Amino acid sequence: MKTVMTTLLGSALLAASLSAAAMDPEKQIETRQAGFSYMAWNMGKIKAQVIDGSVEYNQQQVEAAANTIAAIANSGIGALFGPGTEKDIGDVRTSADPSLFENMQDVAQLAGNMGTAANTLAEKAATGDQSEIRMAFAEVGKTCKACHDKYKMD
Amino acid sequence: MKTVMTTLLGSALLAASLSAAAMDPEKQIETRQAGFSYMAWNMGKIKAQVIDGSVEYNQQQVEAAANTIAAIANSGIGALFGPGTEKDIGDVRTSADPSLFENMQDVAQLAGNMGTAANTLAEKAATGDQSEIRMAFAEVGKTCKACHDKYKMD
Repeated sequence: MKTVMTTLLGSALLAASLSAAAMDPEKQIETRQAGFSYMAWNMGKIKAQVIDGSVEYNQQQVEAAANTIAAIANSGIGALFGPGTEKDIGDVRTSADPSLFENMQDVAQLAGNMGTAANTLAEKAATGDQSEIRMAFAEVGKTCKACHDKYKMD
Repeated sequence: MKTVMTTLLGSALLAASLSAAAMDPEKQIETRQAGFSYMAWNMGKIKAQVIDGSVEYNQQQVEAAANTIAAIANSGIGALFGPGTEKDIGDVRTSADPSLFENMQDVAQLAGNMGTAANTLAEKAATGDQSEIRMAFAEVGKTCKACHDKYKMD
């Protein structure tokens, strides 16, 4: 179980140590989008089963989805917002607002909140208590939105 | 801890229940590629730190990377190989060999092997024993290759 501090520290460490790694900016943009996109798919599965009820609840699927969201949220995706990734590069488009790159400390805080909320969702998913999962899911959603509202362009 | 049987059953269940969900084939192809791409990034981090030694070993990063690989491997990515996703759709290209879609039972078995190997990698990563991590990483790599050799086009 990660504490908020550990998660924050983790994001910072990962960002610091890996952003300059041998990955070109295009690939960084594509990879961060891959991570967010795969998280979104897994959020969608939980939403369908626990919020909308459009798909029958399946404990194993919800648990696997929550684990995936938590793992990606804590995977150091911040490292993929390195120098040169603040604007489109050829066909590779980014929807990150340029202000994101000037507020990395705030972004790390928001990312830490997401990691913490996602860990809670994974814990609740493991219990199978749908009411608790619903609340934890909403909290994760809020942490997504908090960052999107500030730093994601439409 | 998942057993092989649970993992296999999981893949099958996920594939069966979600492949027909409200996601168009283009989006399925893009989302499965996102999952594999994000796994690959995380495999690369472990490789750099534990195999090549090109990046200094960092316990937290390796553990987070291994957790991400395990979570994605067990997330039911098989559900994204639904009907209509066996060939390119406009600009959305797939490198899945058409034979994959005629051998779903074999694919589920290979996916189950990946899930099991990835769970072991996550366990070993948590211990911090680099020699054990190295071996577990190699086993995950073999399960990737086993499927790529059969079902991934160059």
